[in-house]
Amino acid sequence: MIKSLLRRLQSTCQASELSTFSHISLKLNESIWIRGRVHKTRVKGNIGFLILRNQLSTVQCCLFKSDSLPKSSLKYIESLPNESIIDIYGKVTKSEKPTSCSISDYEIQVQKYSLVSRSQEMLPFSYEEGLIADRVQLKTRLDSRVMDLRLPVNFTIFQLTSILCDYFRRSLLDRNFIEIHSPKIIEGVSEGGSEVFITDYFGRKACLAQSPQLYKQMAILGDLDKVFEIGPVFRAENSNTHRHLCEFTGLDIEMTLVYDYLEVVKLVYKMFVKIFTAFDEKKELEVVYKHFGVEKISFKEDLVMFTFEEACSLLREEGFTQEVLHDISQENEKSLGKIVKRKFNTDFYVVHRYPTMVRPFYTKPCEDNMDFSCSFDFFLRGEEIASGSQRIHDYEELKKNALQRSVNIDSIQSYLDCFKYGAYPHGGCGLGLERVIMLYLGIPNIRYASMFPRDPKRLNP
Amino acid sequence: MIKSLLRRLQSTCQASELSTFSHISLKLNESIWIRGRVHKTRVKGNIGFLILRNQLSTVQCCLFKSDSLPKSSLKYIESLPNESIIDIYGKVTKSEKPTSCSISDYEIQVQKYSLVSRSQEMLPFSYEEGLIADRVQLKTRLDSRVMDLRLPVNFTIFQLTSILCDYFRRSLLDRNFIEIHSPKIIEGVSEGGSEVFITDYFGRKACLAQSPQLYKQMAILGDLDKVFEIGPVFRAENSNTHRHLCEFTGLDIEMTLVYDYLEVVKLVYKMFVKIFTAFDEKKELEVVYKHFGVEKISFKEDLVMFTFEEACSLLREEGFTQEVLHDISQENEKSLGKIVKRKFNTDFYVVHRYPTMVRPFYTKPCEDNMDFSCSFDFFLRGEEIASGSQRIHDYEELKKNALQRSVNIDSIQSYLDCFKYGAYPHGGCGLGLERVIMLYLGIPNIRYASMFPRDPKRLNP
Repeated sequence: MIKSLLRRLQSTCQASELSTFSHISLKLNESIWIRGRVHKTRVKGNIGFLILRNQLSTVQCCLFKSDSLPKSSLKYIESLPNESIIDIYGKVTKSEKPTSCSISDYEIQVQKYSLVSRSQEMLPFSYEEGLIADRVQLKTRLDSRVMDLRLPVNFTIFQLTSILCDYFRRSLLDRNFIEIHSPKIIEGVSEGGSEVFITDYFGRKACLAQSPQLYKQMAILGDLDKVFEIGPVFRAENSNTHRHLCEFTGLDIEMTLVYDYLEVVKLVYKMFVKIFTAFDEKKELEVVYKHFGVEKISFKEDLVMFTFEEACSLLREEGFTQEVLHDISQENEKSLGKIVKRKFNTDFYVVHRYPTMVRPFYTKPCEDNMDFSCSFDFFLRGEEIASGSQRIHDYEELKKNALQRSVNIDSIQSYLDCFKYGAYPHGGCGLGLERVIMLYLGIPNIRYASMFPRDPKRLNP
Repeated sequence: MIKSLLRRLQSTCQASELSTFSHISLKLNESIWIRGRVHKTRVKGNIGFLILRNQLSTVQCCLFKSDSLPKSSLKYIESLPNESIIDIYGKVTKSEKPTSCSISDYEIQVQKYSLVSRSQEMLPFSYEEGLIADRVQLKTRLDSRVMDLRLPVNFTIFQLTSILCDYFRRSLLDRNFIEIHSPKIIEGVSEGGSEVFITDYFGRKACLAQSPQLYKQMAILGDLDKVFEIGPVFRAENSNTHRHLCEFTGLDIEMTLVYDYLEVVKLVYKMFVKIFTAFDEKKELEVVYKHFGVEKISFKEDLVMFTFEEACSLLREEGFTQEVLHDISQENEKSLGKIVKRKFNTDFYVVHRYPTMVRPFYTKPCEDNMDFSCSFDFFLRGEEIASGSQRIHDYEELKKNALQRSVNIDSIQSYLDCFKYGAYPHGGCGLGLERVIMLYLGIPNIRYASMFPRDPKRLNP
């Protein structure tokens, strides 16, 4: 973090090459320019202190009245609103006693300074207030998201989100997956259901894709063999719950299958285990756990998987009402999560062979029992984080199924047509990025895991 | 490619572990199951040949009439429409003479087979026709994109697109950039201009983002320091040119600056040089150059950059009409590309210091001359592939500029507000993924570089 502080060099300094700045490390007795936010100021007589902040780092800068720093300079520094940005030139010295800053053993003896950007006095909420979870309401935080993002808990959440995407892609690219970008403006609905945003497309009606489902399948039908996509997904659901967003980031996988959908399950399970293991080693996450008062997840390296019928039994054994051939309600999913945690000591598991009728029309029914399907969901802390299946790859079967489910055939005809020219058996799954982050970290509301969340009531910022 | 052929194992074979399949290599005298498309069949008397295709690979499979392969089997194989998918079990032998297949020194002596998926007889166009650029019209190809994607030229284009995204991200993640996902449904327009898709958002009017511009800046104002995004960008322009799409993939960068916008230029130029150098080593690209009859690009490792005024002079010296303070037209851009190629032997260069009035309202004017701005464009083969600038980071200046340019202040107020609480100097740029691919490869139409392109006339597939 010292490095990132040092990258901020004043624009008037005489340094030779920009690229070298990031490699400087804080050296005792060295004179440097650094840029950061005014975190706090305090002036007492002829001595002033300015705590400079940059991302997760803070360092104390000391100002002693002198010829080059007259009393007026100290007054000026004291007058600067917190969150202003300033360049400081000074000498690095050892702190007499450790400061409360993240860089606690060094401080900077200020010789010159230059204001870069002045903040307003009035902030939507102070940094200190933001540090306390309950002090500032979610709505206030999201209304002033740029202030909120400056807090360590949020910096950590979005850094982790970036890392998650990187791990996801890395693990797939290493297995020769190809990344695709499918259109978000499409003619028909992607998943059935009426909850879709509509736009005028040069005089035609178009929808915003509720998933890249049909297009990632078409990529497979175009012989790309194994594909993935990370992109926005739009749901015009008027749901105001802790776990729904109207726009979220979908991580989608589609691949040809040799045998069956368990190939997808195994690949994704392994990927998650690798990601969770890497995450578990990140000490920075403590700030998030502490902020929200939650515990780390438990997970098993070996696949923990139940058939839908087994999941129903687990629920019924504990007195819950759960009919086979009916979907599991959100409440029962939560309860199942608790049962599995108690009995199997894991927050992470898979349920497969869902009833055919609770899954989309393109889902392949099981060969041994058409009432159940080659489908699966991944769960974390009792909530779904991923959902997938083997797909029907036969044109006639697919069309028949779409008709039976009252899907508008016209709107998916160009998708159906693709199955006429030979189709590899294939399957895949979709993850919700914000859901995974929310549930891995135990964040109470998905809006914290979306940088600029969209829900029925929020379109701004 | 042998590996990918071998990964297709028949679903009835008795193999122990899926994960081991991809590590098998084609061994002489070994008996294997492989899956692929029927590329061609030919039966003559008691001998049949089936060329099996998988992505870029083909291999010859020989059928000799025997007890296990009666005459009827040969007839059946012959009757299979091309593009059908079949599993073949057979023994790997040396070819008597090299075949015309990509795997030319081995062939497979078929013992068993099992049809996986039958294609229709009638194809939108045959694989052989598709191989010839002019034989099949672009419209026909795009109407039946899954057939088209199976051609080596397209497989290569989209594999390269995937690799480009990976290199782009890798080079930024290695420099501690954070990947973000900004909302695509937004309240105001992102760039000014009326060419925007509109949707109803729970009774409110919303736009599809024409760029992540305002949001990536907000991420910087939230102290994320250096961010990037890869995501869809929507433009409701009724343009039917070779280089416009209504939806494309934007690669966006935004970062704090120590000195000025040249930090962005240098970073992006270096990144492109690294990417182009890596691309140049890929022999697979020959198939694309050959298909479209074009030449590789030339580029210099060291930054080739002209001020806007220098670019105007270069044009005028050669007799073109080009006024300073007017934007360069598409035709003049093309001409400039030819001049630069002739004089400096490069297809890749930067033009900077554009007239302030031809750039968006958030662009910082130059301190030495307010008529020009801290902005730049990257060019490849005489067409723009990236555009960027230093941004105004002062609230009052930004608001004043927006007003002067008649931007609707209400619709960007939540963006403007973010500048009230201290803003680091910052800048960035945006690339068009399909443009970069089109121009690097010399593809004549951007639609070839988009898997499922969207233009004013195309919403399907």
